[in-house]
Order: sequence, then C-alpha cells, then structure tokens
Amino acid sequence: MSHYREHIVHANKQYAEKFDRSRLAMPPDKKLAIVACMDARLTVEEALGLKTGDAHIIRNAGGVVTDDALRSLIISQRLLGTREILVINHTDCGMLTFKDEELRKRLKKETGTDCSHLSFHAFSDPEENVRAQVKKIKDSSLILKDVAVHGLIYHVESGRLQEVV
Amino acid sequence: MSHYREHIVHANKQYAEKFDRSRLAMPPDKKLAIVACMDARLTVEEALGLKTGDAHIIRNAGGVVTDDALRSLIISQRLLGTREILVINHTDCGMLTFKDEELRKRLKKETGTDCSHLSFHAFSDPEENVRAQVKKIKDSSLILKDVAVHGLIYHVESGRLQEVV
Repeated sequence: MSHYREHIVHANKQYAEKFDRSRLAMPPDKKLAIVACMDARLTVEEALGLKTGDAHIIRNAGGVVTDDALRSLIISQRLLGTREILVINHTDCGMLTFKDEELRKRLKKETGTDCSHLSFHAFSDPEENVRAQVKKIKDSSLILKDVAVHGLIYHVESGRLQEVV
Repeated sequence: MSHYREHIVHANKQYAEKFDRSRLAMPPDKKLAIVACMDARLTVEEALGLKTGDAHIIRNAGGVVTDDALRSLIISQRLLGTREILVINHTDCGMLTFKDEELRKRLKKETGTDCSHLSFHAFSDPEENVRAQVKKIKDSSLILKDVAVHGLIYHVESGRLQEVV
C-alpha cells in the first residue's frame, strides 16, 4: 500500500483548502536553525512550540553535524540570516542500536556494494554525541562566531527537552 | 535575544506536561521516509497530514539527496523498516537565489577559508531538481529496489503539493 496515495494526497488537499500562510517570508522569523534527528517520534515544531515560518529545520539520522548539515547551516546563516542554532539528539535513538562496521558488512553482503568508505555516524552516548556535534559547529571556520549554539536531548518517553551544552 | 531561552524552554515544558506519546515505537508507523527542504515555511507533518510517529523526516538546504541524505535513507530502510520515499522541493526556495560559485567566493572573502572543494547544491529549476534527486535515490545500489519513490513540489503560496515524478 502506498501511504502517499492513500492518505497524503487527500490530507494535503484539506491542508491547502484552509491555507493562510501565503505571506510568510523566506528568512526564518525567529532567526533560528535546528539540527535534529530524523526520528519519527520527534515532531520538532510541536515539541519546541515553533510555528511554521519560525526556523530552518535540518534533520538526518542521529542529528549529526555532518558536512551536509554544515552546508545547510552556512546557507541558513549567510543567505537567510539565522543567528541561533539548536542541536537535538534524543533518547532511544536508532543510532544506538548498531555499529558502523556491522552495517557496512551487512550492506556488502546484501547488495554486493563495497561500503568500506562510508561513515554511518552510529554512536553510543547521546549526551557525549550532542557535545561533539556542538563542538563541530563551533570549530567550523565557515559558521558565524557570534551565534549561540545549544545542545539538547529530547526524551521520547516524556516529551521533555534536556539541556546538555 | 535567545529565542531558545525566551520561548522554547517554556513551550517545551507545556508540551511535556500534556505528553501522551510515550508508547510510540522506534520504527515509523507508516513505513515512510521523507527528504525535504529545511525551509521554515514548510511544516512537513502538518502539510502532509502526518502524525508524530508516522515517518522519518530528513531535511537539508534544498531537499537534496546528498550522500548524507542517502546515509539516513539507508539507516531508515535497513534498520527501521521504511518502504516508501517522498522527496519534497518547493517554490520560492532559497537555493534558487544564488550560485555555488558566488557563495564560495563570498565565504573565501568573509572567512579566509578556501571553499573551492565545497558543493552547496544551488539549483535553478525545482521540478528538474526534484527529478534529479529521485533519480539519485533510484540509482543508488544501497537503496532497496522494491520501494516507491515520489518526487513533489510544495507550493509555499498555496500549501499545495504537486506531483512531479
């Protein structure tokens, strides 16, 4: 079954009928950029009380500050004026359930593709990981220096955001 | 002013007080993974009628299928069982407002850092771009072959989702 065909097409029609956000500007209203995990249990806007238009939301497996997340942050800051960054990891993350080496071996076995050059960024301690991600942002020469960077853990069991750094 | 300090800490406390999602499982309920732009005007869950827990949401500048987006999709499929992919670009995207070469020159001038090796993935035609992103997913040997991949444009002026591929 295609969830897109069965539900999303219909849901979006209803959304568009009631749409009242045509006047939002391109630059985020709160000058905020967020790097968070792709996890389905975290709806970033809702958990943080953000409205559509408030923030750039960058998400990937783990909420990792990869080169691609840095690319997005650079564009966010230089072209669209954001001036505060939040990095959000969370409890019970899928990234805690495997090791890069295991996944590389499994992919090689299942697809025949050599994955020895790939990093999947699995980690074992969300607090330590979130500190390391904030450090990557602060260490980048392409990120503005006068910008606050917060590192947080979202608790999927309670909905609570915990400040780490 | 820190938007995090002024608003988010308080908003999240209220969110956590009413929290009723502690039973959601780690794998996305709708077996869906979405790659979308980070744009502040697109609240993916709301525009698509998705609930917290339904889908992995991967976002970056442009909604580009970078190596990092592929990393996230591989983890989403192999470890967390998703079986349908949506790629969402949108009208009036910031990626239409610059060229990679301009941004590289500007960063070199403003920071002194050599950016000649960096791709920012600016593009000029969202429909063409979304087709190219879907192709990158379909061409990857590490992505499952029996999975539907849809390419869409979100219209920020109307809230409407347009099917491209």
